Amino acid sequence: MFKISTIIIISILFLAGVSFGSDEDEILLKQANKIFGPLPQAMVSEKNPISRQKVKLGKMFFYETRISVDGTVSCSRCHPIGLYAADGLRKSIGNNCKVNPRNAPTIFNAAGQISEHWIGNRVDVEDQAKQAVIGPPSFGMPSYEAVEKRLKEIKGYGPLFKEAFPQDKDPVTVDNFAKAVGAFERTLVTPSRFDAFVKGELTALSDNQKRGLKTFVETDCMTCHSSAYVGGQMYQKFGVFEPYWQYTRSKEIDEGRYVVTKNESDKYVFKVPILRNVEMTSPYFHDGSVDHLYDAVRIMGKIQLGKDLDKSRVEEIVTFLKSLTGEIPEDALKIPLLPSTN
Amino acid sequence: MFKISTIIIISILFLAGVSFGSDEDEILLKQANKIFGPLPQAMVSEKNPISRQKVKLGKMFFYETRISVDGTVSCSRCHPIGLYAADGLRKSIGNNCKVNPRNAPTIFNAAGQISEHWIGNRVDVEDQAKQAVIGPPSFGMPSYEAVEKRLKEIKGYGPLFKEAFPQDKDPVTVDNFAKAVGAFERTLVTPSRFDAFVKGELTALSDNQKRGLKTFVETDCMTCHSSAYVGGQMYQKFGVFEPYWQYTRSKEIDEGRYVVTKNESDKYVFKVPILRNVEMTSPYFHDGSVDHLYDAVRIMGKIQLGKDLDKSRVEEIVTFLKSLTGEIPEDALKIPLLPSTN
Repeated sequence: MFKISTIIIISILFLAGVSFGSDEDEILLKQANKIFGPLPQAMVSEKNPISRQKVKLGKMFFYETRISVDGTVSCSRCHPIGLYAADGLRKSIGNNCKVNPRNAPTIFNAAGQISEHWIGNRVDVEDQAKQAVIGPPSFGMPSYEAVEKRLKEIKGYGPLFKEAFPQDKDPVTVDNFAKAVGAFERTLVTPSRFDAFVKGELTALSDNQKRGLKTFVETDCMTCHSSAYVGGQMYQKFGVFEPYWQYTRSKEIDEGRYVVTKNESDKYVFKVPILRNVEMTSPYFHDGSVDHLYDAVRIMGKIQLGKDLDKSRVEEIVTFLKSLTGEIPEDALKIPLLPSTN
Repeated sequence: MFKISTIIIISILFLAGVSFGSDEDEILLKQANKIFGPLPQAMVSEKNPISRQKVKLGKMFFYETRISVDGTVSCSRCHPIGLYAADGLRKSIGNNCKVNPRNAPTIFNAAGQISEHWIGNRVDVEDQAKQAVIGPPSFGMPSYEAVEKRLKEIKGYGPLFKEAFPQDKDPVTVDNFAKAVGAFERTLVTPSRFDAFVKGELTALSDNQKRGLKTFVETDCMTCHSSAYVGGQMYQKFGVFEPYWQYTRSKEIDEGRYVVTKNESDKYVFKVPILRNVEMTSPYFHDGSVDHLYDAVRIMGKIQLGKDLDKSRVEEIVTFLKSLTGEIPEDALKIPLLPSTN
């Protein structure tokens, strides 16, 4: 009898707790909805509508090394799907061991950003794919004509281009290559428990994750890391309060968006990265100079917000960030077979 | 009425043809069974029994770049599954752009061979995986200890090693890494229409493919390319009738197995490669010096058999070889998600 009564008391307390918690949770949910919102099903673009045929072809190109100058580079080299579409290197290494200027961000959810690349010098994922094939440190091909020649040599691609771009008379072009890759990338949305929460399922996040979300909001991380992508919607100076290189282990000082615009006000300005799957995409920052998420959060507090976050605050934020690790679309996890060279 | 009678006559002729053909087909089937036989379901080894847990872990390691010296090399780099587990390069390029001494053969069905590597200097797939991690032109790690250290740093692997090797007190070892990779590779069997034929389904091969098989046998290709793997069971001099480099586009003369044994009789001797999926794994030969299957077959006729095969014979053999392009196990086409570095 004693035991049963104990259970009843605990149950009452528990239910009361849930009920108390719920009010707070409801407030948090409203905030989260305002600041973030859930991920869309796909990241659509009027310029490049998604079709099954384009996605199929784009996924094949994602693994295609034969259109790189040394035959070793495909999109997948710097964005391996199994490593959450980032390569784990400080800076990616492309054809003939050339080092890329910045860290390779994950391409999951990347199409939802205002632009691509850390300094926003790619308009969208299609532009990124197109420029990558002739990028000296990436695929390194000498010209678009050379890429088209190779695409035409692999006979199996002809009919697939035709299916994906039925209106085009001569569909085997780099522009269509880029559209196909872009269409594939536009499907790479990775919803997590956070999205279930934002959609109203209050128990989708654990108490610790909710505490972390609250800290993330209260600490003002969300000033920049907002939208369903938790970032990717604006540019911001890296090192608002202090120069970033005094805290990171950067080996060089990167002038950021200044390289593109030559405006003094763009010095050390970078696109705010999306934080979806951030747990899985170490190392951090534009130069991959910091290995651990804990350190990255601590440094961000210090130099972006001018706050010395204590251990428990940093840990709370890290706990929340881990709730952004999402489910990868099943189709993206299936390797396509590529046509033969013969 | 005329039309119907025509159809009847054609049908009778067709059925007669099938019936005449069948006798020949039965003979061909018997020959094929004697020379080749169908692929097994898996390539088992008493030394490394296959288990679900080992295969799961081995497949993860197949994509693991973080155990290479420059963080860019995984098994998948030289054996990308979508390209039929070969990389399409003349010679594979490993860490820090180092060129491997020979062409990367597909790892599909590779565990069924007498040994691994072109010159047979790896005992089996486990030995290959183990030696690869410290191979200077492949993963390039300085020592097995260094590999084990990295494996231990990725915390997520600990429990998976324990599951795969439950009897081991300290299961995170390079030997167990190699066993896991080996177990995965032992599942990579790719049966094709040829196996259906060998198992008795006479119509599984087209008439052209059957003609090609007959030519393959009559021309004596099967003297070396025998067993279910259509090769991989013996060593043979490359260039029995004439030096190979007079026909291939080889840039260097490779002394083959002589490098291992230092026996004069092993000069220019290589392991006979398996021909499963050969259509998909251009370029050909130990140095990838020939791009097209047609040329590879013609050269083989000339220098191995002393025969000038005419165009139609070469084409017949190529047609047969294409029937060896197989189905890749569904599980091997699914990318595993790897644990985070954090």
